[in-house]
Amino acid sequence: MKIVFIGAGNLATRLSLEMHRAGMHIGQVYSHTRQSAETLAKLLGCSWTVSTDDVVTDADLYVFSLKDAVLPDIISRIKPNAGLWVHTAGSVPMEIFKEYSRRYGVLYPLQTFSKKQEVSFDMIPFFIEANTPEDLAVLRKIARALSENVQLLSSEKRKVVHLSAVFACNFTNHMYALAAKLLEEHGISFNMLLPLIDETAAKVHTLSPREAQTGPAMRYDENVIRKHIDMLSDPDMKALYEFVSKSIHKEVSENE
Amino acid sequence: MKIVFIGAGNLATRLSLEMHRAGMHIGQVYSHTRQSAETLAKLLGCSWTVSTDDVVTDADLYVFSLKDAVLPDIISRIKPNAGLWVHTAGSVPMEIFKEYSRRYGVLYPLQTFSKKQEVSFDMIPFFIEANTPEDLAVLRKIARALSENVQLLSSEKRKVVHLSAVFACNFTNHMYALAAKLLEEHGISFNMLLPLIDETAAKVHTLSPREAQTGPAMRYDENVIRKHIDMLSDPDMKALYEFVSKSIHKEVSENE
Repeated sequence: MKIVFIGAGNLATRLSLEMHRAGMHIGQVYSHTRQSAETLAKLLGCSWTVSTDDVVTDADLYVFSLKDAVLPDIISRIKPNAGLWVHTAGSVPMEIFKEYSRRYGVLYPLQTFSKKQEVSFDMIPFFIEANTPEDLAVLRKIARALSENVQLLSSEKRKVVHLSAVFACNFTNHMYALAAKLLEEHGISFNMLLPLIDETAAKVHTLSPREAQTGPAMRYDENVIRKHIDMLSDPDMKALYEFVSKSIHKEVSENE
Repeated sequence: MKIVFIGAGNLATRLSLEMHRAGMHIGQVYSHTRQSAETLAKLLGCSWTVSTDDVVTDADLYVFSLKDAVLPDIISRIKPNAGLWVHTAGSVPMEIFKEYSRRYGVLYPLQTFSKKQEVSFDMIPFFIEANTPEDLAVLRKIARALSENVQLLSSEKRKVVHLSAVFACNFTNHMYALAAKLLEEHGISFNMLLPLIDETAAKVHTLSPREAQTGPAMRYDENVIRKHIDMLSDPDMKALYEFVSKSIHKEVSENE
């Protein structure tokens, strides 16, 4: 089985390297950005191109791993072929391929990927979908070679999973970033927060996030809330503090 | 050394139990709430009271672990004695004790505590402060018996650490709660998100949160951002999504 990666970003990098490690054959990498294509192809020991015209047509699987906004354009520029075309996007329906390929599907790993950061794939949920039972079986086999957690999920439900992941990961990481900024301004090391960050994540393995909630907004400790808002100099951080505190208090009140 | 706990909430529960485990002698628990006082005292094998008048005066250490708003009143109601009085609050200056005790300080563990959830104390940063070098040494010894990470920190800097912890822990947990709510509404298990939540926390051990940031707001993928806002039915969640996305984009732009 020969695989082509269309895209060489964070997700494409980690996924293709993991497939490579699992013994799958990546034949070619395409990226709009020469340096990204070249860097990833070198790691995979395969050829690369920056031109959609030069994407080979004899591969068995094409993995489109691109920013959602450019997906339609790039898909339309790949030469028709007999391979299975899949994307890795949370919020794009499988049917985006309909006009361009007979065989298509989705291979969506629910994880945050950075080029520089290795991550263990064993437990990553892979949500798959395909337009035929045969190709669903192909994708299931590939995903199972990478992870123990492979599930069929509709495009509709995948969108919800993706949206929830933005809260649980991207927004969470931004809360870390704002905390880091505050500490930096006062010359305190961000590392101080790591045991707290780890425990906050560990807690929701055994308690629901609602049960795990602590802090001034949860206790409605107006005293502390007011002091904290006064301490923040950045008006956007002030507003965010107030907004999130209200949202916490609302959730708590609704569930009492 | 005999210790009295004034308060029987989340922090008081976990801290007193850990002190007990480390061989320290807790003599009495006070709480305004009879059930809390009784439950904790039972676990510690000590006496309890709901009346500040009945708090013993012969202890060596008094640990005030209460909501900030009630601290001043309860402190003023404890009978003067020769013990060392400390609180465990992030945002309250040490000087709150000044009028009521000759010996005072702060013992602030930077962690999220829930009554039901055991937590390992070894790595928890303990920030300490006292009004004399002798009592600072007493607090250092106590904290070192619980954790490897004990540091002297001023009341001013402790306030900043506490504020950053609200972002890194309480607001983070609320992001988990909103994600859980979304998944629940669509009958998808929150457990799906655990590998992502764990990796998001693990990443900031090696990358700065800024480097670790991923997702639609980071890529400024307006396509996805728009779709996500449209998907959210709760107007507060819509507003929060938009607000946090803008804040992420702002941070990214400022640091490019």
